[in-house]
Amino acid sequence: MEAFDAVDVIAAKRDRQVLTDAQIDWVIDAYTRGAVAEEQMSALLMAVFLNGLTRPELNRWTAAMLASGERLDYSHLSRPTADKHSTGGVGDKITLILTPLVAAFGVAVPQLSGRGLGHTGGTLDKLEAIPGWRAVLSNEEMYRQMESVGAVICQAGAGLAPADRKLYALRDVTATVSCVPLISSSIMSKKIAEGTGVLVLDVKCGSGAFMEDMAHARELATTMVGLGEDHGVMTSALVTDMSTPLGLTAGNALEVREAVEVLAGGGPADVVDLTLALAREMLDGAARRVEAQGIPGAGIAAGSPEAMRRADDLRGADPVAALKDGRAMDAWRALIAAQDGDPAADLPWAKHTEDIVADQDGFLTSLDALKVGVAAWRLGAGRARKEDPVQAGAGVVMHVKPGQRVSRGDRLMTLHTDEPERFGRAKDALAGAWAIGSDKPNTSSVVMERIGA
Amino acid sequence: MEAFDAVDVIAAKRDRQVLTDAQIDWVIDAYTRGAVAEEQMSALLMAVFLNGLTRPELNRWTAAMLASGERLDYSHLSRPTADKHSTGGVGDKITLILTPLVAAFGVAVPQLSGRGLGHTGGTLDKLEAIPGWRAVLSNEEMYRQMESVGAVICQAGAGLAPADRKLYALRDVTATVSCVPLISSSIMSKKIAEGTGVLVLDVKCGSGAFMEDMAHARELATTMVGLGEDHGVMTSALVTDMSTPLGLTAGNALEVREAVEVLAGGGPADVVDLTLALAREMLDGAARRVEAQGIPGAGIAAGSPEAMRRADDLRGADPVAALKDGRAMDAWRALIAAQDGDPAADLPWAKHTEDIVADQDGFLTSLDALKVGVAAWRLGAGRARKEDPVQAGAGVVMHVKPGQRVSRGDRLMTLHTDEPERFGRAKDALAGAWAIGSDKPNTSSVVMERIGA
Repeated sequence: MEAFDAVDVIAAKRDRQVLTDAQIDWVIDAYTRGAVAEEQMSALLMAVFLNGLTRPELNRWTAAMLASGERLDYSHLSRPTADKHSTGGVGDKITLILTPLVAAFGVAVPQLSGRGLGHTGGTLDKLEAIPGWRAVLSNEEMYRQMESVGAVICQAGAGLAPADRKLYALRDVTATVSCVPLISSSIMSKKIAEGTGVLVLDVKCGSGAFMEDMAHARELATTMVGLGEDHGVMTSALVTDMSTPLGLTAGNALEVREAVEVLAGGGPADVVDLTLALAREMLDGAARRVEAQGIPGAGIAAGSPEAMRRADDLRGADPVAALKDGRAMDAWRALIAAQDGDPAADLPWAKHTEDIVADQDGFLTSLDALKVGVAAWRLGAGRARKEDPVQAGAGVVMHVKPGQRVSRGDRLMTLHTDEPERFGRAKDALAGAWAIGSDKPNTSSVVMERIGA
Repeated sequence: MEAFDAVDVIAAKRDRQVLTDAQIDWVIDAYTRGAVAEEQMSALLMAVFLNGLTRPELNRWTAAMLASGERLDYSHLSRPTADKHSTGGVGDKITLILTPLVAAFGVAVPQLSGRGLGHTGGTLDKLEAIPGWRAVLSNEEMYRQMESVGAVICQAGAGLAPADRKLYALRDVTATVSCVPLISSSIMSKKIAEGTGVLVLDVKCGSGAFMEDMAHARELATTMVGLGEDHGVMTSALVTDMSTPLGLTAGNALEVREAVEVLAGGGPADVVDLTLALAREMLDGAARRVEAQGIPGAGIAAGSPEAMRRADDLRGADPVAALKDGRAMDAWRALIAAQDGDPAADLPWAKHTEDIVADQDGFLTSLDALKVGVAAWRLGAGRARKEDPVQAGAGVVMHVKPGQRVSRGDRLMTLHTDEPERFGRAKDALAGAWAIGSDKPNTSSVVMERIGA
């Protein structure tokens, strides 16, 4: 690989020049192996933050991050693969429902997840509320379970995009997190490395999300869809509302219970709607993928009658029925059990609760996702540093959502924690988190926009 | 001192906000004591580079750097003080002449200097070509010599603006050097800390300087003059030409010899002219300072008849005469001897020389400062890293300057080095360094513009 002086690469981006492929390859590789110092990369990241990357630069930057580690390969699998990634929100337990739901239709889901940081929860933290459940699988275990159960939800191994792990930690302390090229290359390098054939992105928009307005969310979604397509992954995105928490719970065990309710055919409408929209995207993507590329691991050639039949089956799949008739629940049980979890076990409850009640009659007109997320975090459901533990039972249960009528004295929320001294700061976080008015507010659909082919 | 989160301070500047005084004080102090990490400061520096600092922010930033260490105090001295700082050029031996010349008129010069890096030479490296001469003085030795000899040229102590030492090293590796707020705060925090009452800045403009065009040089000069005035130092600046090397030598002992020629009443016209212009600025500044503030250490009150008489004397000073009649040379000898140097000693010569000759007849129309500087550096006169040694005898002697007539075969330059294997790369650096044409070029005055009250 051609070598450069880090100062020249930084100066080029500082001066709004387009970096060459060789410069990008070198700087990501050299940083990953420690030959470019942290302070040099942070200067480059700030220059990227302020001066941007062109589409070709971003593509190469992502490819270089991908090339810093291994790329998993499921081409030998007897099923097509599809995955979903969410940019992170409050009460977002969709992965727990969506993964077994899609797997129930024979589409394997390699869901490599992370832990929560700050006010957004992490899928692994939620599932760890289930006694026995194990987040860490070897690559061999993953491959085997993808074939046998048709899905995994586990921690991304250290071998995937190691450049991203270093970059992410650096961005966190240098105010270079919230920037479309850096967010999109971080997410997509990991998701492409995990080896999925189809990827559906859930780009959150609103107070509880990275992207607070539609223009930024659309830009991020469009950028990531382009990166996925350029790397051979069939990618689409839904921009979805994160101004209000998803569902009625925020917290680890609380969210697992709600997810199980949906898998049992019930649950809150917004969670059901978003799960179904994402499931249809994944099944549709899988159908297009099977048409275009067949299923090599099952000996099904692209364009063959069998490929067409499989694609038609996927297009005809009825996820609503699968939630009602127990197929999704069966897949959930198999998935949890395969990773040593007991799907029948009782989930922990927090030791202490405190209610928050309405101080007037009317309609709940708003309920702020960020503030509820911060409250759940302060109750012990989330962590400030990645070494911190989380409480399985802590969090917020919402009793009403915007658009519903409340009377003075009705419970709005119940706060849960093992440590009652946490109630004070959690309630501080909820100051101004909701509003009650006399007119019924307009509530809109959780899915705001679709981006993709 | 109020504490902040470094990420918030970085984010504020990244988002083009004006930093508060408390944020600036905190971030410079915390960085100096290691509580803000290098990678955080480098992200902030890049944000400053790209988004700038307002005048009040820069003032505070400089004050915080100044406050990171001690500020020397010459108010007890029986003489007024004045100093000069040059932003660095090729063949710039002015300090060697100017310091004793001004001291000869009873104005004490606390010249704290640095070493050379890259293609610009360092005053301390030049003086170390003199046998026995010592660059390091204690604060007590400095104070004593300022009273007895009326001048020092020595290495800046570690106690002055320690924030700058850390910041400078960081800027060097993160492509955040060439930025007006960061250059000006670096220079001015050190110069204000050294305790001079009057400061004259020689801001170089042209290929051999940081600032390659007049607009940037003027911006830097204006900014630094403002910073000096705001900190109670009577400050002015001359923007001077650095498209061509100053004088006929670039290299350590070679430049000391040329400086001694000027002190003996001879020497190249451009060196003499610039020295006189800067001497007049310093003497004039000292006159204004004495009028406005008296000389407290000599018991002379501001506005007193004695203060007026002293100021008039300084205004009437004749530096041309002092170069001709030996007063400047006497001050030079005293200055060198006070720091254990032998002013009568033979200076070292390099072991090997090689001539560069004209390949045609005509007028020398240009001679590029940067290329000559790089050649001198490659011959051994300069260093790439601050730990490297320099050769006392190495450098470039120029036999003609732009505007002079040459014949084919005439010597243009002679290269000097102890290591003949260096000739090749030095000559490479000189490719295109000069031009010979048939028309006599216009040559302009070395002083391009004056900025100040």
